[in-house]
Amino acid sequence: MTTDTGSERTGPILHNSGVGPSVRPSPAVLKARRERLLAAIAIDGIDVAIVAPGADLRYLLGDSFPSFERLTALVLGRSVCLLVVPEMELSAWSTVVAQSSLEVFAWADWQDPYAVIVDLVGTNSVVAVSHELPARHLVTLQEAVGQAAEWRLNSAVTSLRGVKDDWEINQIEGAASAIDDVHAAVPGLLRPGRTEAAVAADIQHVMRENGFTDSEFIAVASGPNAANPHHSANARTIERGDLVLVDLSGRWHGGYFADSTRTYAVSTPLPETARAYAALLRSFECAVSAVKPGVTAQQVDLAARNELSEHGLAELFIHRTGHGIGLDVHEDPSLVRGNEELLRDGMAFTIEPGIYLPGRFGARIEDVVVMTNGVARQLNARPHELLVV
Amino acid sequence: MTTDTGSERTGPILHNSGVGPSVRPSPAVLKARRERLLAAIAIDGIDVAIVAPGADLRYLLGDSFPSFERLTALVLGRSVCLLVVPEMELSAWSTVVAQSSLEVFAWADWQDPYAVIVDLVGTNSVVAVSHELPARHLVTLQEAVGQAAEWRLNSAVTSLRGVKDDWEINQIEGAASAIDDVHAAVPGLLRPGRTEAAVAADIQHVMRENGFTDSEFIAVASGPNAANPHHSANARTIERGDLVLVDLSGRWHGGYFADSTRTYAVSTPLPETARAYAALLRSFECAVSAVKPGVTAQQVDLAARNELSEHGLAELFIHRTGHGIGLDVHEDPSLVRGNEELLRDGMAFTIEPGIYLPGRFGARIEDVVVMTNGVARQLNARPHELLVV
Repeated sequence: MTTDTGSERTGPILHNSGVGPSVRPSPAVLKARRERLLAAIAIDGIDVAIVAPGADLRYLLGDSFPSFERLTALVLGRSVCLLVVPEMELSAWSTVVAQSSLEVFAWADWQDPYAVIVDLVGTNSVVAVSHELPARHLVTLQEAVGQAAEWRLNSAVTSLRGVKDDWEINQIEGAASAIDDVHAAVPGLLRPGRTEAAVAADIQHVMRENGFTDSEFIAVASGPNAANPHHSANARTIERGDLVLVDLSGRWHGGYFADSTRTYAVSTPLPETARAYAALLRSFECAVSAVKPGVTAQQVDLAARNELSEHGLAELFIHRTGHGIGLDVHEDPSLVRGNEELLRDGMAFTIEPGIYLPGRFGARIEDVVVMTNGVARQLNARPHELLVV
Repeated sequence: MTTDTGSERTGPILHNSGVGPSVRPSPAVLKARRERLLAAIAIDGIDVAIVAPGADLRYLLGDSFPSFERLTALVLGRSVCLLVVPEMELSAWSTVVAQSSLEVFAWADWQDPYAVIVDLVGTNSVVAVSHELPARHLVTLQEAVGQAAEWRLNSAVTSLRGVKDDWEINQIEGAASAIDDVHAAVPGLLRPGRTEAAVAADIQHVMRENGFTDSEFIAVASGPNAANPHHSANARTIERGDLVLVDLSGRWHGGYFADSTRTYAVSTPLPETARAYAALLRSFECAVSAVKPGVTAQQVDLAARNELSEHGLAELFIHRTGHGIGLDVHEDPSLVRGNEELLRDGMAFTIEPGIYLPGRFGARIEDVVVMTNGVARQLNARPHELLVV
């Protein structure tokens, strides 16, 4: 669950503060990624890629910084590799620029950064843009370039990012292990009488101590609040008898994301709740077992859903079974009905079936798995059973 | 300075946690805003507005929630007012929906939300989109609707938001007063030997106590770090002799933003630094005095810049003089060379000249002003002089 792509998902901006520089692949690896992307877009008939700040840029340059409303973009084509960046934000990019030998156009507030891109793109091109590029820039560019150009999403970079190399998997393992350590601290923080918000604030502190940096999602959803799969944390007081769904995700050391959910019971759960949870755990296990070479993303979703159907609970499972994870907390592949993408070695994704009973309770189990040698290797090691605190 | 629009400006997501419900205008006010928008887009020849989560939606519906990567949008036209929302996120919107009598299309993960919008828009329309709508949705909609449609940015809603009513000004005043209280606590936190990040963490705590909710920017830029206007806070230790630029912005009680910068001196500054700061203060005062009816946005910028020129410092002022503020921390009007927009009563904006000497220091003075009866009323009350701590 959880993501960092919402335009309002903002907060205290201590970019990677206090934990040293971001973990970055070597300049040679980054260069190879850019070359693979150029080859991939050429095959797709794309002339130029415009890459906005976010995970795509982090993948190609090793880091990315907030774009604010001023245009920041990497323009990448057969004969161009130019970073357009506001002059006043240039210093943040200095290391990235030096390591990648990029050309830079640093524009002042009274200059027009779009004209430079229009010149590079030309009027008759096929242009691929990042998923994150906001309309303020995209529509402005479309108007400036004119009707003859064709605009597409940059699915080539999405595909490249979907298959992780060993270094990336190592980073995702590190993040998973760190979030396990945070979950290990949760039972000590969940007590009747505390508010969700107070517990979430404590968890945030533990996450920072464990290397999670500029972007976190912390859900502490108790009792009926957990019936909303995207509830975060509010002033509700945790009570005896509650199930508490704790979903933690964050960027680890400025790089890759962890995302893991456990559901805790504050005192022994009712027998019917325990039965529903046991079915959920079976659903989780079936989904993990379904990960095999030649299997599509939707088949894993179906495996989780079928198991819940056996127990009459499929109606309560109101979201997809999982999402890819890496430099974004949500990326390809999406484990959802209709996605016929074949799972491949190097794909990392969550498995996270959940059940949600409005007004009553919610529960979810979420781990990150990576497909290695044709099987799902689980990167989280915390027990999956309902933990009574 | 500062903003919440960057795609990576994310953090702990305790949406409005612990401080009660967001401050919202009445349903009648919201309805009147939607009707004014419909009238304005009709004049512009626009058939349908697609409003993404963010400040535009907050303005029209009274609140807005993170969109994640799933499509959430309000579709607004002569005969349609439909909120498209992921089913799993519907509960967050329940109050908004009830108060605004919206039609809702709640889509499940395995449904296609774009097809519904394509049906409403038609193939031959002029469509206005929010600045915040990400390419993942915009390009997908453009491909689905086809070549005959015309896509524009929704500048009508931007214009409406640019002129605040009395209730909005009252909210912005409250936010300004609350950030003044936070700045009053800063001298007690700035001590040689502390890191910027530690001070920023303390300030965040004070901001939360003073009603700042889901989105904050906290810059504690000391010594040479302050020469980067968008530096936030890192592990640098504050030293005697530093200037420390403290830029604080945040959303107050789930609604309007404060944004204020003060520069502090850790021990008595060098005479040349004090002289430069005195020139900066004059520049600030000249800009405030320049706000009059019939004056354009760029004239205020020029007033600040001319004063710095008198002291040979104009080259160090590398950004615009200010930005509108309201439900977004950066909105119209932009006080920048080339913006010939006339200032009007009801406009609220920052005045924030700064000087930045790479490798040495930076300083900025920032207040929010609102134009009322033809003059700039300053909403922040903290002294503007360099405060020695």
